[in-house]
Amino acid sequence: MNLIVQKFGGSSVADVERIRHVARRVADSKDQYPDGVVVVVSAMGKTTDRLVGLARDISSSPSAREMDMLLATGEQVSIALLSMALQELGYKAISLTGAQAGIITENLHTKAKIVNIDTVAIKKLLAEGYIVVVAGFQGTTADQQITTLGRGGSDTTAVALAGALEAPVCEIYTDVDGVYTTDPNVVPQAHKLSEISYEEMLELAQLGAKVLHPRSVECAKKYHTAIHVRSSFNTHEGTYVKAMKDLEIHRPVTGVTSDLRQAKLAIREVPDKPGIAAQLFGALAQANVSVDMIIQSVNDNLTNDIAFTVHEDDLKSALNIAEQVARDLGAPEVIHDPEVAKVSIVGVGMIGTPGIAAAMFDALAQAQINIQMISTSEIKISCVVARQEVRKAMQVIHDKFVIDESAVNSDDILL
Amino acid sequence: MNLIVQKFGGSSVADVERIRHVARRVADSKDQYPDGVVVVVSAMGKTTDRLVGLARDISSSPSAREMDMLLATGEQVSIALLSMALQELGYKAISLTGAQAGIITENLHTKAKIVNIDTVAIKKLLAEGYIVVVAGFQGTTADQQITTLGRGGSDTTAVALAGALEAPVCEIYTDVDGVYTTDPNVVPQAHKLSEISYEEMLELAQLGAKVLHPRSVECAKKYHTAIHVRSSFNTHEGTYVKAMKDLEIHRPVTGVTSDLRQAKLAIREVPDKPGIAAQLFGALAQANVSVDMIIQSVNDNLTNDIAFTVHEDDLKSALNIAEQVARDLGAPEVIHDPEVAKVSIVGVGMIGTPGIAAAMFDALAQAQINIQMISTSEIKISCVVARQEVRKAMQVIHDKFVIDESAVNSDDILL
Repeated sequence: MNLIVQKFGGSSVADVERIRHVARRVADSKDQYPDGVVVVVSAMGKTTDRLVGLARDISSSPSAREMDMLLATGEQVSIALLSMALQELGYKAISLTGAQAGIITENLHTKAKIVNIDTVAIKKLLAEGYIVVVAGFQGTTADQQITTLGRGGSDTTAVALAGALEAPVCEIYTDVDGVYTTDPNVVPQAHKLSEISYEEMLELAQLGAKVLHPRSVECAKKYHTAIHVRSSFNTHEGTYVKAMKDLEIHRPVTGVTSDLRQAKLAIREVPDKPGIAAQLFGALAQANVSVDMIIQSVNDNLTNDIAFTVHEDDLKSALNIAEQVARDLGAPEVIHDPEVAKVSIVGVGMIGTPGIAAAMFDALAQAQINIQMISTSEIKISCVVARQEVRKAMQVIHDKFVIDESAVNSDDILL
Repeated sequence: MNLIVQKFGGSSVADVERIRHVARRVADSKDQYPDGVVVVVSAMGKTTDRLVGLARDISSSPSAREMDMLLATGEQVSIALLSMALQELGYKAISLTGAQAGIITENLHTKAKIVNIDTVAIKKLLAEGYIVVVAGFQGTTADQQITTLGRGGSDTTAVALAGALEAPVCEIYTDVDGVYTTDPNVVPQAHKLSEISYEEMLELAQLGAKVLHPRSVECAKKYHTAIHVRSSFNTHEGTYVKAMKDLEIHRPVTGVTSDLRQAKLAIREVPDKPGIAAQLFGALAQANVSVDMIIQSVNDNLTNDIAFTVHEDDLKSALNIAEQVARDLGAPEVIHDPEVAKVSIVGVGMIGTPGIAAAMFDALAQAQINIQMISTSEIKISCVVARQEVRKAMQVIHDKFVIDESAVNSDDILL
């Protein structure tokens, strides 16, 4: 079937005027996709925040089940209003709660995973010519308990529905034009990507690009659904997120991203014996400190330096733990730097392209930027630099790798 | 089982502070009724008005199905917050939507009737020690469509649940202390009734007492459930609404009520032939004019006077229709009075007590109040008087019939 699933977030349905705008947009799509349009919407604007505020006023630790009961109302309001707006335009439209849409989740409140989508009801309504408006972010357990999906929930609802309905594309409408090669506020030459792989998107999302929640990308990858990230304010094509093998352009480097709020710690000259890393990072995990990059370097055959980065908010507790562990291990020194940042390049093309890492280090060296730590994965290379140099680092790396893709075809390999 | 059903309206849960107050009240009841407490709540304060406003901004005639989808969220917010507040007090509590509570309605949106209540889920939760908090005003059709019950819906939910659970009493909490013998703003001697029959309550409600919606009283009568109308601001006993045979006190006159906004019309000297009333009142019904009192008097063997009252807002259209009908019938004159009011006495005891009507007319005559129309039923006598005399009429009738019931026992018959 040539149907489409579209998702509009909370800011797109923040008031009656915007809901009308979304309705016109959806109506246009219905003309284009006569087989069917399924629309997923979030709660209006700040509704969820308002509801959370009410709950917090009543209880410092409200029950997860009752939070789901409360928050699920936000999307229910949106679907009813959007359906009314579509009907006002003369279209057949019907709203469905998560439960009515057949979105079955595990029995876990506030962060349930979808375990199954029973599409019978939606398919019947599509066949009857309805635009089907589904509440994002919510589902139901097998025994009729209302659940919510946690962060990124509405994106996940949309992508999972697209997968279950075998829709070729899931459109995610947002307030940006698509996925950019880097932050345009930092690098003016940043430009929109026409396509990107799931894997690259996951690396970019986890590194701070806020366009799509990683969970929805994972879900799209699993169901092999293309995601089209685009603006709700214009009709330009946005960015397609799809399988690596379906990409038309193979770039070694797709995007440059940064994480500004890092802090670095290192325990120097740790005596080399088994179990030390487990001891340190076990203690950090127990204190709920997330560790990002970990480097262990060998000084000689007897001692190692263990360096790692954490979010700057966690620096103080990480430092306490590291100093305790250093004392226990007889390591002489813990050093730290509260003012570092991480700059990363991401690209599936780097797998088959030698010299990408060297080129990145060269770009930084040319700009006199000192690299403090390096970490690499198959599709990502990250360097820790002094925080005041990160903007410059992003600029020179972007200059080095990312050129306007309109000038590139799939036979060109950069560098 | 010694369980209780309690209903709190929108003003009782209008904000977090009031929800906490309701929670304390419910918690106290749980200590009194260890077998179980079921609480029915309405949407917070002006929530329903706000939602209706959003819908009206989008559509002048929003679909009934989508209105129900929208409005049902109001009660869902209340049940979640009240459950959290109860948990915060250390009580086990759980919220249920209409659907989860097993409230099955007919397939009619915005004014569905309850057709069945499946109490399995509620009974299981009560047995587990939960205070069960149910969303008022809403239900579900057999095929999972969300419906609402229309005006008085939350009262009806509570009374129907009490019936289905065989709770001996359904408490309706409101902002007044109970049902009064008449309007205390008009007659300072008005006092709270300790009990009243369903039938009297229905007459009083339809005549303007706003405490309980007639539908919930009908429902209570059907299931033989006593309703206890009481204040949410104090712990005084309110008024029990129950079956006539269960009343402890048989008063000929229970209450005095009035309807101020009436207008009177009369077609004079209508030639007496069959079908005339049908013609007149058929035309009025077609124009959507509700007729209250109808009096047909015989002038002689040849002509009748037909007098009737309507709501003052309907006077103009009623007058047009009456004049048209008068012309068609050859009646010489239509007279009207836009400034009349109806004063009524209600009491099941008047069935067996001769002379009540005569006493009412006498009270009015003593006060020099002219009676323009009279109508009687088994438990009600109504008189139309000039509007400016209605307060005095209520006062003299109340003085005549209604005395403090603390001075009455069931062997005393007034008059």
